Amino acid sequence: MVVVDNAPAPNTRPVAPPSTRNPYAPRYSDFLSNISNFKIIESTLREGEQFANAFFDTKTKIAIAKALDAFGVEYIELTSPAASEQSRLDCEAICKLGLRAKILTHIRCHMDDARIAVETGVDGVDVVIGTSSFLREFSHGKDMTYITRTAIEVINFVKSKGIEIRFSSEDSFRSDLVDLLSIYQTVDKIGVNRVGVADTVGCANPRQVYDLVRTLRGVVSCDIEIHLHNDTGCAIANAYTALEAGATHIDTSVLGIGERVGITPLGGLIACLYAADPEYVKSKYNLSMLREIENLVASAVEVAVPFCNPITGYCAFTHKAGIHAKAILNNPSTYEILKPEDFGLTRYVSIGHRLTGWNAVKSRVEQLKLILTDDQIKDATAKIKELADVRTQSMEDVDTVLRVYHSGIHTGKLDVGNKAALDRLLEEHRDQNGSA
Amino acid sequence: MVVVDNAPAPNTRPVAPPSTRNPYAPRYSDFLSNISNFKIIESTLREGEQFANAFFDTKTKIAIAKALDAFGVEYIELTSPAASEQSRLDCEAICKLGLRAKILTHIRCHMDDARIAVETGVDGVDVVIGTSSFLREFSHGKDMTYITRTAIEVINFVKSKGIEIRFSSEDSFRSDLVDLLSIYQTVDKIGVNRVGVADTVGCANPRQVYDLVRTLRGVVSCDIEIHLHNDTGCAIANAYTALEAGATHIDTSVLGIGERVGITPLGGLIACLYAADPEYVKSKYNLSMLREIENLVASAVEVAVPFCNPITGYCAFTHKAGIHAKAILNNPSTYEILKPEDFGLTRYVSIGHRLTGWNAVKSRVEQLKLILTDDQIKDATAKIKELADVRTQSMEDVDTVLRVYHSGIHTGKLDVGNKAALDRLLEEHRDQNGSA
Repeated sequence: MVVVDNAPAPNTRPVAPPSTRNPYAPRYSDFLSNISNFKIIESTLREGEQFANAFFDTKTKIAIAKALDAFGVEYIELTSPAASEQSRLDCEAICKLGLRAKILTHIRCHMDDARIAVETGVDGVDVVIGTSSFLREFSHGKDMTYITRTAIEVINFVKSKGIEIRFSSEDSFRSDLVDLLSIYQTVDKIGVNRVGVADTVGCANPRQVYDLVRTLRGVVSCDIEIHLHNDTGCAIANAYTALEAGATHIDTSVLGIGERVGITPLGGLIACLYAADPEYVKSKYNLSMLREIENLVASAVEVAVPFCNPITGYCAFTHKAGIHAKAILNNPSTYEILKPEDFGLTRYVSIGHRLTGWNAVKSRVEQLKLILTDDQIKDATAKIKELADVRTQSMEDVDTVLRVYHSGIHTGKLDVGNKAALDRLLEEHRDQNGSA
Repeated sequence: MVVVDNAPAPNTRPVAPPSTRNPYAPRYSDFLSNISNFKIIESTLREGEQFANAFFDTKTKIAIAKALDAFGVEYIELTSPAASEQSRLDCEAICKLGLRAKILTHIRCHMDDARIAVETGVDGVDVVIGTSSFLREFSHGKDMTYITRTAIEVINFVKSKGIEIRFSSEDSFRSDLVDLLSIYQTVDKIGVNRVGVADTVGCANPRQVYDLVRTLRGVVSCDIEIHLHNDTGCAIANAYTALEAGATHIDTSVLGIGERVGITPLGGLIACLYAADPEYVKSKYNLSMLREIENLVASAVEVAVPFCNPITGYCAFTHKAGIHAKAILNNPSTYEILKPEDFGLTRYVSIGHRLTGWNAVKSRVEQLKLILTDDQIKDATAKIKELADVRTQSMEDVDTVLRVYHSGIHTGKLDVGNKAALDRLLEEHRDQNGSA
């Protein structure tokens, strides 16, 4: 078996030297991991329509679909054409746009819905049925035998039309594992393109996700899609972990909009995967469009982009504490794993507050082309901290202190440590120029 | 060794019957897991002060500290008294409040800061120093020998004052593992109360967190604290995973405010841990205060609570799609793992949209005490979906359709499927009452 002996073992891919290696990339490649080999199923126009505020008219749907296509998502999922007449017409209209992304629609596992779906021109159909005891008892009331029989009928029908078909359970993490693996194995054997795992209630934790997806990876040979609700804020991490365990497709929506608090957000997932493999993510997606797409959807559903949103949250690249600011000015990688310029954004170092440090102030002194020694800068920093103990200082306030300090030093009216003289000079400046 | 033989093995704790068991609790208890045995170190008044918008005056700091104490967090962490004179005074003032929570302050690993900290009246001091090659090169410029020597000096000094001491590395996930374990082992041996692991740049993934914490659990005997930034949206899941791996203390801030997009949010962590062990979380914390605390901090830093915030996001308990609404009305556990009433909140089932279903409409018909057959309700639902295809219908709009439909049926002016008659009746109603 010479060939086998000479071939590199899958877990010993050469490692880049530490200086250039991304510290967040796995040290050795993981045989199952799809962190650098995944597809996004963007569901703003399906799951997102289930968000409390969402009402997308045809024009808005088309604008969102075009933007997502330009961003580069691989799939766009639409509301079931069986939901309403306009939903059906919109589905047909989006299929006719000629987008690069494949168009999917999402239906109940039912022949009535399937017959309508295949006539719309979609590239694929996503079917779903509740498999947990909760949903079997309180939702559709069907047993596993009925579910399996219906699934086979719908899958064979959709396949006969020559389009993609996915079969997903709903509430997968509260379903009986044996029932679940059994139905996935059955639909895999009849040639489904993907099976879907769904954390419909939004509470699976990362190790549960890893275990279920890894187990499933050993049972089916088709692709594995994962759909994760965000009720406990774990949907991004769970998506990442699912990819590590061998999932191939991740469901997202812009800003995560969907039922309740929604699902894995597109932007957050991109941040997480960019951190793991920036080159792969940059090669697939038009990252500088992210802010524009988020603004488009936020405006359509009348919400604000959260202040803490990964990448586009308004302070995502603002650095404040003195030790952070100092290090960032030396090398942005110290406190930034996302490069703002890759997303068409810029960083901001905040210095007018009581947590500021003299190194950050020194950088501003240099930007203003003022000539001060380190001791003088430390002295001016103490004044900035004192003022900021009363109220936050704007960049203009900080600049005023620095300019007055500089002028005092160079006219001989001030020396280091003379607090009274500095207060007097600042007061004179205020009298001449209004409140600083 | 009869006693040992009779004792239950740690991983075979009896399992509750499936009907009552929380499906998200681990099936067998995990020997290392602290999911049901953890403490919160609430850092809104330290990490939170590093949020771009934050400026807390003394009165606001005291209000936040009191609210967190009433909520039940075990520790409250404050900005270093070395940061500014007012920071020192505020630290002293909060120590004098006589709160049940222990008061900590967070300082650089430096004797100058330590001497100031121990005089403020705090119950404990959290020291931190950068250990990654990034921070050693671009921030403080010190080597591991210097770091270790300083750490020992500071720890012994703080211990000599009889107060708690924690030693944390900074940027732990980009630090050399051997350096890291070596310094943790050293400080554990000299009697530090806790060691801290910090994902300062916010990009560790759950399996990395699990592996590092589990490894550390085998090296030190003291408590383990974890501090996780949220740049890629994984901070809640990472905190959960750290507890599974044996961490004992989790850092949070209200709404996650902190440097850049901040750290593990208190509310999100509570959602995640409540889902795993509701009784334990309810016994420790005053959950109905969560919304009030979030509003207090949001108002102090002038941000809006994100629409998608776990628990308190404004649609966290709103159900929309027809199949969700139907099942929720039968049994809320179908689509809710958090009980809104445990947080002093209520659920809302939205029905005036094109994704609505006749089961949800039937529930509204019953609330309105109207008498309609299932076929009549399905017919009225079709009209609601048709109207909602044009614009979202308010609950008042939906009620109007149902009342007009009901009156039409009972006066004999309408029968099932007669669209023209229903349109005429709705038009008459509009003429008499203004726009529906």
